[in-house]
Amino acid sequence: MKTRDRILHVSLLLFNEEGEAPQTAVDISNALDISPGNLYYHFKGKDAIIHALFDRFEDEMHIILKGSRGRVASLEDSWVYLYILLEEIYDFRFFYRDLGLLLDRYPDLASRFRAILAQMRTALVDMFDELTAGSVLRLDPRLREVLTDQVMTTLTFWLAEDHLNADCHDGPTLIHKTVLQVMCLLPPYMGDRGVETLTDLFEHYDTVVA
Amino acid sequence: MKTRDRILHVSLLLFNEEGEAPQTAVDISNALDISPGNLYYHFKGKDAIIHALFDRFEDEMHIILKGSRGRVASLEDSWVYLYILLEEIYDFRFFYRDLGLLLDRYPDLASRFRAILAQMRTALVDMFDELTAGSVLRLDPRLREVLTDQVMTTLTFWLAEDHLNADCHDGPTLIHKTVLQVMCLLPPYMGDRGVETLTDLFEHYDTVVA
Repeated sequence: MKTRDRILHVSLLLFNEEGEAPQTAVDISNALDISPGNLYYHFKGKDAIIHALFDRFEDEMHIILKGSRGRVASLEDSWVYLYILLEEIYDFRFFYRDLGLLLDRYPDLASRFRAILAQMRTALVDMFDELTAGSVLRLDPRLREVLTDQVMTTLTFWLAEDHLNADCHDGPTLIHKTVLQVMCLLPPYMGDRGVETLTDLFEHYDTVVA
Repeated sequence: MKTRDRILHVSLLLFNEEGEAPQTAVDISNALDISPGNLYYHFKGKDAIIHALFDRFEDEMHIILKGSRGRVASLEDSWVYLYILLEEIYDFRFFYRDLGLLLDRYPDLASRFRAILAQMRTALVDMFDELTAGSVLRLDPRLREVLTDQVMTTLTFWLAEDHLNADCHDGPTLIHKTVLQVMCLLPPYMGDRGVETLTDLFEHYDTVVA
């Protein structure tokens, strides 16, 4: 691994595990066992590292959010898609821990973050439209908005909420739990098949987590 | 107004408007046009003020959350009840802005805050049970959990989300919008009456906001 990549890799680990705010450039170079001068050769301070990590997050989210179009047409697809999305967010979870504060500090990242949220909303609306077109869901346009709002809130604040509740789930469990929580929003819009689907979702969850 | 009450009143205004983190005890005494010594006579620093404000928030939430039992049996009651709850949260909104960070700094408040959340969850479950008993809702016990989770997420993060989206709604509009968002979670559990209720909810919202 090249030094530049090692720096990003170790910084991401540190930020995710211990929070971004308390870390200094010196902490990062210590964790890497390189001199602050060597670190500075690659990145002009912690801000530059945060921006490089955000570039990666943005690129990967872009691929996931653009790639879904026309490909999420069943409940199984939705489950897998949400799982991929949540894993990606989890990989860069330090961005989400104290979101408001981080974005106050980096207004340029705030507007790029909002663009990602807008893209995510579009991907969700596409997904709900396809599920409706395939008669999986029966979704009034107004309820589509309501459902999209709810899913957006969950996808944005699931990590903050887990931290708040001090539930301290390990990553994979928390991701599965959150996918289930989002999927369980759908049965009410499935007519008679809703109750049966709900049972399937809980069974699938138990299989995956066990 | 007694000096002690004036200090709490002005501190709450400052924290809500400009964030709690940047304020010092000197800023607060300047805003009150009293000496830091006079402030210190009433409160031994900013932490003591935050604790006194939290005491008030806790007392008021306690009254609201305990008072609902057996009294929220219709959709109209639910609307009003959510409105009261959101207004109370809005009054102390600085607690919710950067919740994770504030609670990391005050572990004693974190456990008391979690107790309030647990009480709120109980109040919501009671409300949903009454609406089900009165045949307003048809709610499978598993879906009751799903619905409660969603409402809890919204009630905890609506202020952070508004800040994130940079929507900058004024308080009353944001409160009404959020009440509508929560109420719109109910029609899917109302069978045939759901669609009609949804129309009523949007009409009621337009009337209130206009």
